[in-house]
Amino acid sequence: MCYKLKCISCNKIYEKNEIEYTCPKCGDIYGTLEVIYDYENINIKKTDFNKYDDIWQFQKILPIEKNSYKVSLKVGGNPLYNFKNLKGIKNVKIKYSGTNPTASYKDRASALAINKAYEKKYDTIYCASTGNAASSLAGLTANTDLKTYIFLPSTAPKAKITQIKIYGSFLIPINTSYDIAYDLSLEIGALKKWYSRNSAYNPYLLEGKKTGALEIIVQNDYNVPDYIIVSVGDGTIISSIYKGFYDFYQLNLINKIPKIIGVQAEKAQGIKKIFDKGEPYKQNIIQTTTIADSISVGNPRDLIKACIYIKKCKGKYISVTDEEIIDSIYDLAKTTGLFAEPAGSAAYAGFSKMINNNEINKNDNVCLIITGNGLKDIDSIKDRINYKTVKPIKKEILDYIENN
Amino acid sequence: MCYKLKCISCNKIYEKNEIEYTCPKCGDIYGTLEVIYDYENINIKKTDFNKYDDIWQFQKILPIEKNSYKVSLKVGGNPLYNFKNLKGIKNVKIKYSGTNPTASYKDRASALAINKAYEKKYDTIYCASTGNAASSLAGLTANTDLKTYIFLPSTAPKAKITQIKIYGSFLIPINTSYDIAYDLSLEIGALKKWYSRNSAYNPYLLEGKKTGALEIIVQNDYNVPDYIIVSVGDGTIISSIYKGFYDFYQLNLINKIPKIIGVQAEKAQGIKKIFDKGEPYKQNIIQTTTIADSISVGNPRDLIKACIYIKKCKGKYISVTDEEIIDSIYDLAKTTGLFAEPAGSAAYAGFSKMINNNEINKNDNVCLIITGNGLKDIDSIKDRINYKTVKPIKKEILDYIENN
Repeated sequence: MCYKLKCISCNKIYEKNEIEYTCPKCGDIYGTLEVIYDYENINIKKTDFNKYDDIWQFQKILPIEKNSYKVSLKVGGNPLYNFKNLKGIKNVKIKYSGTNPTASYKDRASALAINKAYEKKYDTIYCASTGNAASSLAGLTANTDLKTYIFLPSTAPKAKITQIKIYGSFLIPINTSYDIAYDLSLEIGALKKWYSRNSAYNPYLLEGKKTGALEIIVQNDYNVPDYIIVSVGDGTIISSIYKGFYDFYQLNLINKIPKIIGVQAEKAQGIKKIFDKGEPYKQNIIQTTTIADSISVGNPRDLIKACIYIKKCKGKYISVTDEEIIDSIYDLAKTTGLFAEPAGSAAYAGFSKMINNNEINKNDNVCLIITGNGLKDIDSIKDRINYKTVKPIKKEILDYIENN
Repeated sequence: MCYKLKCISCNKIYEKNEIEYTCPKCGDIYGTLEVIYDYENINIKKTDFNKYDDIWQFQKILPIEKNSYKVSLKVGGNPLYNFKNLKGIKNVKIKYSGTNPTASYKDRASALAINKAYEKKYDTIYCASTGNAASSLAGLTANTDLKTYIFLPSTAPKAKITQIKIYGSFLIPINTSYDIAYDLSLEIGALKKWYSRNSAYNPYLLEGKKTGALEIIVQNDYNVPDYIIVSVGDGTIISSIYKGFYDFYQLNLINKIPKIIGVQAEKAQGIKKIFDKGEPYKQNIIQTTTIADSISVGNPRDLIKACIYIKKCKGKYISVTDEEIIDSIYDLAKTTGLFAEPAGSAAYAGFSKMINNNEINKNDNVCLIITGNGLKDIDSIKDRINYKTVKPIKKEILDYIENN
């Protein structure tokens, strides 16, 4: 596959083998790289794709070599659900990532990173993660011969730590934030010469993640929603959504790019505040405390793309409170049957907020992306899971039914 | 769809509207009903099916009416993975149910029960469950107008209880075993005139579950494995596997029925002991204590089919210890990247045991069914998830990597 790498800030173009991670001139935050294609020489037609295949069906528009290594578990092909009159909006689509192998959107990025680790002949791969990228990398490398090191804040949800351990990765639970764990992982990864699956730093992750957007297009019969709503931590997923639509737009498979709405937790508005200030977008590290661990990011690494792309598509950022996020988990589950972890449900909280603010019209076509399965963090809602038990006596159970 | 109901013990045939649950003459245990079809009048060809569609692609061989209610979440289409040289066996297939909407095999049965509840014009549905059937029924009824009542032993895993509550079902957590909760639910369900989604009692559940077998056939290009290995509690899933292969065999789509191996926990051998004694199969209620909550069943309700069918296909039952089950969760996750709950992994524990006993040959085609996602019960392995945390200091992390 023919592609090049281009710095998002200085626009310098690099050959694919010339550079590994970020633009040396612009640095890690400002110098994240775009993968660019020669669209005129890519021959893709709608019939190449179907609704439930895995991400590799998109290989003609992925930066991977022919016959390269592909993870053996099925990544992608997650359902796109259609709900009529959800909260008064006629057509709402929900892309649910809870059915990926490790139950989050992140599997799409890990699959690409593993492919690249093999291509580049690394024997070890690492990542820093709030939890999902880590459990994803651990799960998808479990049956490979790669060694996997995970840098994780020790406060990560139990289920995600359990996944990492059970898949057999080397876990490094650090008493610190994700942001600091990330910096430490970069240093140690470079020292050890391990391949990095760190968000934004590795330019190929975004290309894996964009397959979520490509799937939405295919599953929605090449109709483009008016709005896509997705939660935002480092900013790679939201950037990847733009990139997926952008690629298919360049290939004349769709006629527009949707407005993309990024939802951040009020206590972790790493990107929103910078975006709202306007250009030039400048790094500004904050402290975060949100219950939505997956988007608890104070130093978002894909800041620049996440600002530039969202401005280009006329999208925006909004924020929701932790209480709104927790409420939205309930509301989403009861209304749709879809159970989301806090960061996943944040998209639904943002959707509700936009409706309340009359920012979405009942005839708008809206698509929400739910990035992680609720089973990955049940403790976040434990305060609201209250119930009394009852004795195994018919009369007492009948009373229980009557009075609860 | 034209079908009838036939008592598994006395062979009496009932019209579909003549009877709701079990044969009145033979009672609930002995009188479970088979759904029987007029195979000669069913026109099915291989090209009707594809590998990742949901269970409704099989509607020509399901007991549902045309244009009947279908749950809106995608049930079925779970991946069938192929592993080469797994534990020395050349070709091992694994059917992983962790990607169903509520992350277990049980969604297949709930989907059918909900369909029937609508057809029969009930407004309320209930089940007794160890946990997965309950969370499944709760999840798949969440966005319907059915009211849902769940009878559950209060010791059920936290994640499953969380699912039930979050989906908005009415939870009745009873301080007792599944077996007693089941009996109480039958009594109260009948009193309240609610529709029953109780294993074995409702004859349609097995028909929903058999779609797992049909999918294995389609995904394996109509090649039939030599062995299918699956864990067993009430006995409905294992019976449904037989029924799925039997249906396609009758329709001349495959040329044999595999040997089906049922795996039970040593401390919950409700069916194995009765099967091993031979005919006539007689109910014998036992106390159970296994960590594999989903198969902790002392009074298996699908006992008779689970014995008759397994004898017919020359299968058998084996048992594994709780320790072997826990070990198998690790082994499976590290070897394949698939995370299973204890009852799901019991199939893998049984597979390992059969290899150790030379009961499987390296050239045999073996298919394991993993019935539930490990995220549904992480506490079962918590004793083995041990780790030390480390300070956010580069040197200490390097030492941690060196010494762990």
